This record gives sequence, structure tokens and C-alpha cells, in this order.
Amino acid sequence: MISIGLLGCGRIGQVHARSLMRLPGARLTALADAVPAAAEVLAAPTGAEIRDADAILAASDIDAVIIATPTNLHFDQIHAAAAAGKAIFCEKPIDLSAERAATCRAAVEAAGVPFMTAFNRRFDPHFAHMEAELRAGAIGAVELVVITSRDPAPPPVPYIESSGGLFRDMTIHDFDMARFLLGAEPVEVFATGSCLVDPAIGAAGDIDTAAVTLRTATGALCQINNSRRATYGYDQRIEVHGAEGMLQAANVSAHLVTRADGAGFRGARTMDFFLERYEAAYLAELTHFVEALEAGRPVTPGIADGVAAQRLADAAARSLEEGAPARLDR
Amino acid sequence: MISIGLLGCGRIGQVHARSLMRLPGARLTALADAVPAAAEVLAAPTGAEIRDADAILAASDIDAVIIATPTNLHFDQIHAAAAAGKAIFCEKPIDLSAERAATCRAAVEAAGVPFMTAFNRRFDPHFAHMEAELRAGAIGAVELVVITSRDPAPPPVPYIESSGGLFRDMTIHDFDMARFLLGAEPVEVFATGSCLVDPAIGAAGDIDTAAVTLRTATGALCQINNSRRATYGYDQRIEVHGAEGMLQAANVSAHLVTRADGAGFRGARTMDFFLERYEAAYLAELTHFVEALEAGRPVTPGIADGVAAQRLADAAARSLEEGAPARLDR
Amino acid sequence: MISIGLLGCGRIGQVHARSLMRLPGARLTALADAVPAAAEVLAAPTGAEIRDADAILAASDIDAVIIATPTNLHFDQIHAAAAAGKAIFCEKPIDLSAERAATCRAAVEAAGVPFMTAFNRRFDPHFAHMEAELRAGAIGAVELVVITSRDPAPPPVPYIESSGGLFRDMTIHDFDMARFLLGAEPVEVFATGSCLVDPAIGAAGDIDTAAVTLRTATGALCQINNSRRATYGYDQRIEVHGAEGMLQAANVSAHLVTRADGAGFRGARTMDFFLERYEAAYLAELTHFVEALEAGRPVTPGIADGVAAQRLADAAARSLEEGAPARLDR
Amino acid sequence: MISIGLLGCGRIGQVHARSLMRLPGARLTALADAVPAAAEVLAAPTGAEIRDADAILAASDIDAVIIATPTNLHFDQIHAAAAAGKAIFCEKPIDLSAERAATCRAAVEAAGVPFMTAFNRRFDPHFAHMEAELRAGAIGAVELVVITSRDPAPPPVPYIESSGGLFRDMTIHDFDMARFLLGAEPVEVFATGSCLVDPAIGAAGDIDTAAVTLRTATGALCQINNSRRATYGYDQRIEVHGAEGMLQAANVSAHLVTRADGAGFRGARTMDFFLERYEAAYLAELTHFVEALEAGRPVTPGIADGVAAQRLADAAARSLEEGAPARLDR
Repeated sequence: MISIGLLGCGRIGQVHARSLMRLPGARLTALADAVPAAAEVLAAPTGAEIRDADAILAASDIDAVIIATPTNLHFDQIHAAAAAGKAIFCEKPIDLSAERAATCRAAVEAAGVPFMTAFNRRFDPHFAHMEAELRAGAIGAVELVVITSRDPAPPPVPYIESSGGLFRDMTIHDFDMARFLLGAEPVEVFATGSCLVDPAIGAAGDIDTAAVTLRTATGALCQINNSRRATYGYDQRIEVHGAEGMLQAANVSAHLVTRADGAGFRGARTMDFFLERYEAAYLAELTHFVEALEAGRPVTPGIADGVAAQRLADAAARSLEEGAPARLDR
Repeated sequence: MISIGLLGCGRIGQVHARSLMRLPGARLTALADAVPAAAEVLAAPTGAEIRDADAILAASDIDAVIIATPTNLHFDQIHAAAAAGKAIFCEKPIDLSAERAATCRAAVEAAGVPFMTAFNRRFDPHFAHMEAELRAGAIGAVELVVITSRDPAPPPVPYIESSGGLFRDMTIHDFDMARFLLGAEPVEVFATGSCLVDPAIGAAGDIDTAAVTLRTATGALCQINNSRRATYGYDQRIEVHGAEGMLQAANVSAHLVTRADGAGFRGARTMDFFLERYEAAYLAELTHFVEALEAGRPVTPGIADGVAAQRLADAAARSLEEGAPARLDR
Repeated sequence: MISIGLLGCGRIGQVHARSLMRLPGARLTALADAVPAAAEVLAAPTGAEIRDADAILAASDIDAVIIATPTNLHFDQIHAAAAAGKAIFCEKPIDLSAERAATCRAAVEAAGVPFMTAFNRRFDPHFAHMEAELRAGAIGAVELVVITSRDPAPPPVPYIESSGGLFRDMTIHDFDMARFLLGAEPVEVFATGSCLVDPAIGAAGDIDTAAVTLRTATGALCQINNSRRATYGYDQRIEVHGAEGMLQAANVSAHLVTRADGAGFRGARTMDFFLERYEAAYLAELTHFVEALEAGRPVTPGIADGVAAQRLADAAARSLEEGAPARLDR
Repeated sequence: MISIGLLGCGRIGQVHARSLMRLPGARLTALADAVPAAAEVLAAPTGAEIRDADAILAASDIDAVIIATPTNLHFDQIHAAAAAGKAIFCEKPIDLSAERAATCRAAVEAAGVPFMTAFNRRFDPHFAHMEAELRAGAIGAVELVVITSRDPAPPPVPYIESSGGLFRDMTIHDFDMARFLLGAEPVEVFATGSCLVDPAIGAAGDIDTAAVTLRTATGALCQINNSRRATYGYDQRIEVHGAEGMLQAANVSAHLVTRADGAGFRGARTMDFFLERYEAAYLAELTHFVEALEAGRPVTPGIADGVAAQRLADAAARSLEEGAPARLDR
């Protein structure tokens, strides 16, 4: 039984708390939030104790922490948890600065604690099936990955202002999926983008529409397209072309009922809300974390994966700024 | 080169004339229609000679006739063509009376002339592929055939009045497909139906909505559903369940463009017009007829198939009237 | 907070126990099973007390019972629960004998206790969405319902022997869905069927393949097809045709990844296991039960719905035996 | 009636000859081919006269020429036809050299003759429907076009050697579709690619896999991916994202029959052969040409469209070589 402390009781912290209630191998021992009411709301149904974040990080009855706090707190909390020898499950991004993220990595590796970067999409049943098929050689060597990743609607502008920009906030998931599915490190990134959805996003110094191209050392390619708006729902599709075939993961529809009438055939929107769309993935990632800890197996994706995805995001931002491909291998 | 005479230059006669222009092994030598203008319109582009129907049936320069005249003329024309030793391609139904159709069959078989009943749907590329898969054992022994066959809109009431009723006019195609795909003769028919689309159809003594169940001697089943109205276009689907799997033939869409927006995903109506939906089938059936004649191979479906489908239609009408299953093997 | 007693800790009892753990408005107070080990396994994670079934039925701290015991125990338990004034959630069938089921209905109605027949499929999100669309008039008046309902594989022959036969065991769900979607009572049933899957099923006096036709007083129709075997997974589709269009509920796939290669495009099997296919439905039906009790609203489907579906099953069995349609309105 | 001379009786010339036989407004008067046998084969069924190419270009009984000869002959034939005042239907590319293509454009515009560049894909019914929807504002302003364009198998290496390279030979169709659907001129091209399919293609100095990004002055984007190999058939899909929704054009399947069994659901390969996949498009483009000439309306796409697509291909080649985006507006 793994005893867990939860740092941060916001939207994603609540998701993890609910997942823990369904995991026989874990117990949510304590939780913390800067807003007392947020901690209280979650303490009741889970039976967890409310403590200070620092107390949780230092507690002897806690085996592992889930870091679901604002990004700017990750650095200190990762260091404290690593120093205390606790296993760490950390929301992305590790830190908006690649340098500080690399520092976290060094601390974690020095301490030798298990660290899992919460790239939930790797645990989506459809994408996980796709990756398993790839690894089993279903379509031969990977030649091209195409990722369509479009949010239903843009977040508030203040969120965007502190997000690190589209590539670090949104595309970072796609960079991780690209690495996961290519099975190789991209060495070149070309990114271009526009502000087409909302001028206020442009005024905040960001883009809302992007087209990114990755390239590995052996010439495998990846095309990503992003938008902060998709009127038909959350658009999350992946296509992988290999030497012997193609794999496609389709969108998840809100329901499976089609209506046919004089105007043709009409199907449902895609599942809109990311917490609902990736509900199974959130449960699966935490299941992996807990079961790996119980069995003494390594957790994945690790901190190196988190750092690598951030390097791609930084390279994309550089490419956009310079109007030229950015190299990662120099 | 097969020299062909066309009897009847109406809608379906025109389709066959155009098909012949694309068949290198056939020449449309002569055509006839009770309405001179109809014959003239078709004579110009095809280069065929306008003659009397009787003259065509007697002509020494004609190898085969296409009978595309009103149903009440079929009987005499089939007899005349058989007597003259001509190959016959005849639109369905052979005759509204099963007895008279059986008399035609006897005449054709006595004369030994090739006779093809124009059940075009057997030549639809999708349904033909399905049948080929079945024959190749793709899903094992056939257990259940489900046929969905719904017209976009009802024909005019006067047409319905002289049509012989839904089962003889519309379901007859489905009865033929059932025989084609079951690969066995139905021995029992249960038919029920309603007038739900247009009361005028009921006033004309017919139904416009039907559910039919067929059963073979070995217990294989077939469910057919019909309607004279489908607001989303011509609905022509077939599903076959076998011991080892299922085959499904989907509808043909008017186009392959999907539009996604706030209301979901919208695809095209099905192809509406039967001449367009079955365009490839009309060409393929005549290609089969001409190539078989050239090669001295038998044509199929033959007159026995035409008669058998009509017996099923008669049995369905009897079942509807009596409110009980009708047997065909007694 | 509704205090619940669970009678029966078998497969479906376990599903309901797990659902209750996710429902804030309910508490599983006690559970009972003839097999002590079965009760113990479920007592641990739920924290419920193990009691005798009779004790639960008589207990003053229990508001409602879930009857998930073998069918032959339902009669007495329903009567006891009704006499004790408890709300009842009862698995189908109420009783294999329609007469005894009617007696239960009388007892429940005399006692005035809430009674819900566990027709879980009404709560499947896709089918529920379909019904909501129908009720909202999305396709006008219903003319035809087509239900495809095929199990992945037959149950053991001993199960079949005590099941009451295909219509009472399997088609009963489809009869309920037909009533639910037609929005009217069928007045005539024609059922035919065969033993094509396994001769042992025939030897046990049952069929494994069926085609059923229902008809309402106004002429609306329903076609059901069943098989005890579907090699491609659990096949659960519904199609409703109305005056202004059609609604189709598609199968639920095991995953959404398609693989394309030289052999074409290959998609997943359908979800195989009924507990997994209808997982959301099982949770939703119990949610409805608990929330309705809390709010003092009526529960649905009620005991009359359970009885009506059984009458259809009985009529189907009679139709099969007699080879003729069976009437329900005489 | 437009009298037409056909220059080149190879594969595509034969397609056009057959299309002309179905067009009432056109007569194929004469045809020419450097290989006498090729001309003879086509003369028989069409009834056209065999002449010298120069004789056709000079003939007074010819209104329009179809240039379907090898690319290196286009330049002279376009100049001769323009000088002779003939309408011109010319296969792509106009010339492998953008400069020489521009010279052709000047000659054509000076002569004032109608000129149609044979970008057949604009006339595919699905893509044409998509463009009509876009122009009708179905999804608002275009933000991103995604083009998937993958051949079933690479052409012979000698063909590749003389083709001008992937971008000028294959992607040129996609560049035209991008312009067609964006409704605006790309001002920047970033192209990257690899040799992953066949090392012999790399040895011939070309790539066989490509990812291209286009950008217009207003920031609309286009992503193209190409491969010389697709094991599942000819892959030709287009997706357009706009401010109010998305349009998707799906692949055309070889047939519509799905087979379900223990391994899941299997659908057909896509239509393999480009002449078959785009059969309707080839007929529609020539119909447009002939009907526009008859009615005195302008033909489209014109020579400027042909030149613009070639400029994009040249820019892509430059981008690939330089490893940086290439600008088109300077």
C-alpha cells in the first residue's frame, strides 16, 4: 500500500484524488492547498488529512507525492521531495525554464527517487494501443507521425499570459506524443503560427494557431497542427505512417447516435472537456505510478522525458521567432 | 459482335442504350417504342435504326432483344423472341401473374434461348463483392441476411395502382437478393406491413411500409424492411451473418465530404436516384449479358430466378392478407 | 442518504456494489449471499455488514433492496420487501412465470413501494440519447425499429436449460427496448428461430438464432434479430425510422485505432463483455434509482414494464411453437 | 461542336479520348503520337484521323488541342497552338523550367487563346464539393488546410530522374489544391523530406517522403504530407479548418463491404489506380473545357495557375536544399 500526499487540490488535483479512491494499492494520506476551502472540499470524501505542503514533503508516513500545484512552485517542491526520498508524480511542465527543469532532473537523479512526468496522453487507451501496435511492428519502421491537437476554446487571456506560450503550454503534449510514437529524438524543429482565433491572444504576445514540423536523425518526420479553437469539440487525432502501413486514432465522440434526415447524416460532436476526454488516461497513469512503485519497477515517462519535451517547446518558440528551423543536436 | 434490338425507349431503355455504346462486343442495331418521339431521341446518338417492335422480333439481323417495355407486353414479346430464337434480356417482372410468368419460362426453355432477368442489384459492385466473399467462405455458412431497402419517395399513385403492390414492385428486388445471398430457397414467408407514408397509397389498396421474414429449409433466416420513403436518400444496405463472421454493404453517399461545426459532424445524403445509385450495376449486367453471349456461356440470373422471386412476392402478398406465414414448399 | 441492502453478491451484485461506492446519495448498509465467501469478498471493500437475506428484508435500517439473486428467489423476496415497505430494485426477469410476475406486480402496487425493473439498456448513454431525440420529435412519428442484439458466445448449456429460453432470457432486453423506443404497446408478435450455433442448445429444447417482428395497434413495426454467437464481439445496435428521418446507434468498439495495410483497413472488435459494454448503463440505472428515491420522484422502468416485456417473451415463445403470429390484445 | 486535336496517345491521352466520346459538344477530329501504333489503337474506336502533331497544330478544322505529350514538347506545342489561335488544354507541368513556363504564359496571353492547365483534382466531385462549401462560407475564413497525398507505389527510377523531383512531379497537384482551397497565395514555403521508401530514389537525387508547410500573407497555413508509397492504396485526403468549423474529404474505397470476424472489422483498400480514383475528375475537367469553349466562358484553372503551382514547387525544392523557408513574395 503506497501512502500518498497530494500537493494542490485544484481541478487536476481533484481528478487524481478521485483516481486514488479507485486504486486498491494506494491510500491518500494527506493533502494540501494554499486555499483552505479547496483542501477541505477534497478531504471529506477521501478521508485524507489536511496538512501543510511542507509538512507533507517532510512527513515520514508519506511514500510519494503528487505535485499538482501551480508551475512556479514545482521547482522547490521537487527538490524537497527528492531530498526527502519520496517518489514524485509531477504535472507538466516541470518548470517553464528549461535550465531550471534540468536542475530538477539532476536533483532527482542524484536522489535516485522515482519520478513520473504526468503526460497523461500516453495512457489514453487508444493512443496506448497505437503505441503497442507500433512497438510490435504492426506497420514497420515509422516514417511520419501526424498529430492534430485542437482545443475546443481558448483559455482566458491571463492564463495565456502566464502559460509560457502555445508551444510550452499546449503543444508540449504533442511533443511528448511525437517522441513516444517516433521512438526517436527529433533533431530539428520548424514552427510557424498565427493569431487567427482571438486578437487578444496576439496582443498578449502569443499565437493561437500553429503548424510544427519535426525531423529525426534518420529522416522520420512529424507534422503537428494546433489551434486554440475547434467549434466541433476537442480534436485529438493521431496518424502514424510506417513502411508497411498506417495507424489512425480517431476522435472520441460524445455519443454514437447518428441522425439522418433531409440534410444528410449528422453525428455527435467530439467529447469536449479534456478531463472527460482523457478520464481513462488520468486513471491509467496513476495506476501505472502506484503499481510500479508497489512492484519496484521504473515509472515512465520519467523526468528526462519531461525535460526533452520542454526542449522541443523551447526550440519551437525559437524557430517561430527566427523564422528558421531550430536544431536540437548541436 | 452481338446485334441487339431494343424494345422500349423509356427511362430504363435509355440506360441500356447508353450502356451498349460503351460495350465493344455489342451493336444496337434497331430500337422500337410506341411513342415515335421516344425512339427518335435515342436513334440519333446511337445510330440505331427505328423499326416496329414486331419487325425487330422477326428480324434476321438481330441476335438478341432487350425487353424494356411495359410489363403487360412482356408475355407476347418473350414468346415471339423465343420462337424466333433470339437471346432475351428482360426487365423485371416477367409478368404480374405467376402463372403467365411460368408459361414464359416453359416457352423459353423449350426454345432453348438464353434469357436473362434484369435483376441489376446482383451486379452492383458492392453487393457482387459481398456475394463473392460469401461464396469464397469468408464468413462460413450463412445464418441471417438483413436487407434494408427504402426508396427516397413514393411513386405516383397511378403507378402504384398498376404495380402489383409493394411486394411485387419493390420487394421483388430484395427477394432476389435474399435468394442470391442465402444461396438457398426460402420455404416460408411472413410479411406484415402498414400504410404510414401516404394514405392515398392505402386507399389504392397497397401498403408503403413492410417487414418480411424468410426462412429456408435448413433454418437460415432473412429479414427485409421496406419503405416507400426515406428522407435521407435511397437506403440500400445489406448485412449477412454467417457462422464465422458478418459482411456489411454500406450505403453509397452522394459525396465524401464531412462538415464539422458546433452542431457536430454532418455527412452527405445517400445517392438519391436509383439510376445513379445503380449506374455501375446497369452497365455491368449488360456487359455480362453481351460477354456471355459472345463466349457461349450461360447468362444469369435466368428466367427461373425471375419466376422464383415472383413466387416469393406472391407468397408475401398472401401472408399479409392472411396474417400468417405462407409456405412455398407445398 | 438511502440505506441499501444487497441480496445476491454474484457478478451483477458486485457491479451494483461498486456503483454504490460512487454514489454520494447511497450507502450499502448490508449484503447477503447464500455462499458466505461471496458475501465476504464484497463486504471488505464496501464496508457493508453481512446479514441474512431475511434479516435485510426485515431490517429497520434499510430503505431499499437490490434483488440480484437467482430468478427463482425473486418472488418471495419481492413480496417480503413490499410487505416491509422497502423500495425495490430488481434484476430481470421478475419471474419466469408471467402469472407469478403479475402477482408480484399486484403485491408491489398494493404496498405502494417504488419498484424498478433493472432494464439497464435504457440507461446506456447512446440508447438514452436516442430515446431523448425521439421524444423531442427529431425524426417524427416512429414507423420502424430495428434491433440487432447478438451475444459474443453462448452461455453454458445448463444455464440455457434453466433460463426460460432465448426469448425470456436474451430477447427480453430487446422487447423492453422495443417498447421504450416505439412508445407504444406491440399487439402482435411473430417469432421464428433456428438452432444454428450449437446442436446442444437445440437438444436442450432451445433456439440460438431468432428473427422477431412486432406490430403496434397503429401499424408501427419492429424487427429484432438475435444470435447467441457473434465472432466480432457483442453486437448491440438499434435503428429507428420515423416519418422525418432515422436514428442509428452504432456498436461500441474496443478501441478507436484503425490499421491500414495491404489487406485494407482494420478496426477493433466491438466491446466483448456485457459488463464492460454496459458499464456506464449499470452506473446510470442505479444513479437514477437512488436520486429518484432521494427526491421522492417515481422510478422507471417500473414493475409494469417488467411484466409487459415478459408478456412479449411469452407471446414470442407461443408464436415460435405455433408457427403463427401471437396476439397480445385479446 | 468543338473540333479537337489530341497530341499524345499515351495513358492520359487515352483517358481524354474516351472522355470526348461521352461529350456531345466535342468531336475528336484528329490525333497524333510519335509511336504510330499508339495512334492507331486510339483511332479505331474514336473514328479520329491520324495526323502529324504539326499538322494538327496548323489545321483549320481544329478548334482546340489537348497537349498530352511528354513535358519537353509542351513548350513548342503551346507556342504553335497559341500562334494558330487554338484553345489549349495542357497537361501539367507546363514546363519543368519556371522561366520557360512563364514564356509560355506570355505567348498564350499575347495570343488571347483559352488555356486550361489540367489540374484534374479540382474537378474531383468530392474536392469540388468541398471548395463550393468553402466559397459558400460553410466554415468561415480558412485557417489551415491539411493535404495527405500518398501514392500507392513509386514510379520507376528512370521516370523519377526525368520528373523534376517529387515537388515538381507529385506535390505540384497539392500545391494547386492548396491555392484552390486557401483562396490566397502562399508567400512562404518550408519543405523537408527524406528518402525512406527506396534508396534508389535517393541515389537518383530525389526524396520519396516529404512534409511541406505553406503560409499566406494573412497567416493562413497549409500542411502537406507526401509519400511515394502507401501500402493500403492511393491516399488522397484533404481537411480544411476554418473559423466556424472543418471540412474533411475522405478517401475513396475500392468497395463498401466490411467484413467482421474474430480479428475485428475490415474494410477495403482505397482505390489504387489514379486513373480510376480520378475517373470522374478527368471527365469533369474536359466537360468544363468543352462547355466553356462552346459558351464562350473562361476556362479555369488557367495558365497563371499552372505557373503559380510550379513556382511553389520550385520554392519547395529551394527550401529543401537550403534547409530554410523560401519566400515567394520577394
